[in-house]
Amino acid sequence: MAPPQGAGVASDDPLVSWCDGATKNSIVDFVAHVTKAGGANYVAPEERIATFDNDGTLWAEQPFYFQLAFALDRVKALAPQHPEWQGQEPFKSALAGDLQAIFARGEPALTEIVTATHFGITTDEFEGIVRTWLATTRHPKTNRLFTEMVFQPMLELLTYLRTNDFKTFIVSAGGIEFMRTFAEMTYGVPPEQVIGSSGKLAFEMRDGSPVLVKLLEIEFVNDDAGKPVAIQKHIGRRPIASFGNSDGDLEMLQWTTAGTGARFAMLIQHTDMTREWAYDRNSPFGRLDRALDEAHAKGWTVVDMKNDWRRVFPFE
Amino acid sequence: MAPPQGAGVASDDPLVSWCDGATKNSIVDFVAHVTKAGGANYVAPEERIATFDNDGTLWAEQPFYFQLAFALDRVKALAPQHPEWQGQEPFKSALAGDLQAIFARGEPALTEIVTATHFGITTDEFEGIVRTWLATTRHPKTNRLFTEMVFQPMLELLTYLRTNDFKTFIVSAGGIEFMRTFAEMTYGVPPEQVIGSSGKLAFEMRDGSPVLVKLLEIEFVNDDAGKPVAIQKHIGRRPIASFGNSDGDLEMLQWTTAGTGARFAMLIQHTDMTREWAYDRNSPFGRLDRALDEAHAKGWTVVDMKNDWRRVFPFE
Repeated sequence: MAPPQGAGVASDDPLVSWCDGATKNSIVDFVAHVTKAGGANYVAPEERIATFDNDGTLWAEQPFYFQLAFALDRVKALAPQHPEWQGQEPFKSALAGDLQAIFARGEPALTEIVTATHFGITTDEFEGIVRTWLATTRHPKTNRLFTEMVFQPMLELLTYLRTNDFKTFIVSAGGIEFMRTFAEMTYGVPPEQVIGSSGKLAFEMRDGSPVLVKLLEIEFVNDDAGKPVAIQKHIGRRPIASFGNSDGDLEMLQWTTAGTGARFAMLIQHTDMTREWAYDRNSPFGRLDRALDEAHAKGWTVVDMKNDWRRVFPFE
Repeated sequence: MAPPQGAGVASDDPLVSWCDGATKNSIVDFVAHVTKAGGANYVAPEERIATFDNDGTLWAEQPFYFQLAFALDRVKALAPQHPEWQGQEPFKSALAGDLQAIFARGEPALTEIVTATHFGITTDEFEGIVRTWLATTRHPKTNRLFTEMVFQPMLELLTYLRTNDFKTFIVSAGGIEFMRTFAEMTYGVPPEQVIGSSGKLAFEMRDGSPVLVKLLEIEFVNDDAGKPVAIQKHIGRRPIASFGNSDGDLEMLQWTTAGTGARFAMLIQHTDMTREWAYDRNSPFGRLDRALDEAHAKGWTVVDMKNDWRRVFPFE
């Protein structure tokens, strides 16, 4: 998939939206090393596995995770079937649009909202609902479709790596079936290369035809130490390059860089309050604290969004 | 990966080990339909997902599953660390080599032996142990390496489908990490396209370096209704062709054929007691009963190994 090119941008540089400098050079140098046949750091194409976080790494995650926006809209859509939600938190606050009251309840409240709005329907039904939502709902700040809120430099990076025979995977705490509805069209990453959090599924016969029904039970949370575990389960080999932006990506980067041979680890630091958002150590969404310390200590590449990216979004 | 060719076999036919006739024609016709650009049954390459059972479909499974042979050898290797096994079934029978006593205890005993011999070590350590075992252990009847006990017609079929831009996956009740050690070299199926049963993993730091440790707890059994569930979790789209040989594959074939457009389902019936084994409705390993009835009722392709395969094993 060719990355979308903005008006007036034309270049032979596959990473044209990356400013020249140490950050861009670290990417290009790594790729040159592992693809140089006969070189000391050569890696065979089938071992060129690259894993990417999604929220905050491939698309934005402010003012809150986009899948949470979807879940909040689902609470409203499902409310007529759940009269009990009128008096029951966190649904009561969700219906009132009181986001701060929900956030004050922390992760458990968010998890409760997501699970309650993602179960009891078939996988096919869920996919249809997400597709419709993504095609019609706009970001509260930019008024863009959420699938437009992707980072142009990262689209170029995905394409650049695939051009160099990397296999690119998404490894995100986001819901696996939520992400798969847009990952292929938006990022060029097919469903079988999307790894995320998941709920249990049940195989059932309905009118003589099999369906997969989404159950209420959470099966796997693909964050923190869950990421290397999921990489092993889904991919079965260790990535040679990993890309993230928050503490939830730390173990993935540790796992990646602990392998033998050339390895690459990158963290995106959100430093651009004009074009995107500026947040790190104290953000409730995409907190970057311990991982930033470790990146500095170990010499991992840290992207300074404000100064390393010529363009942030494709629509700029 | 080119399939191994036996001495004296030379042909332009990619399915040279399949006898001419209705079975072979059903494969060739299906592939011709879905790859014909502009045709009514055309399927885009990215949707050409084919899923294969392993035991009894890609390699033999008699006199008992090969992974069970591995586990029984592991019981002997680990016995010095487990003095309690001397008096504890099913380990006592395993150490005495009394297979019938183990089989008489049924599935739970087999599961106990497999789990007890597959945990407590890192994924890297496990991979090394399996590789060594596969390189040095021989089948009790044929005296061949287990990785030689693969079906030549199925190797050709895997290659034929990939040549036609199918993505081939293994979807087996076998252990995912066990199969991944040989699937790429033996079948040309990379680790990320191998789906199997699995135990839980734990991410741990050992001497400052991360490892993944195999835990005793079974996480997922990839058989029966588990197969469509695993296909959804790992692949995220429905196969258009599925290949199996036992009742454990029935739901996978139902799920595959219930999709829209051209679909293909195949069951291999083991009918060749001379070159391989003859078994179906009453076999403790690879029982083919309900699925065979459904295949006949729905017109799925049923391979008669004795009459449809010119050659069974590559070494013939």
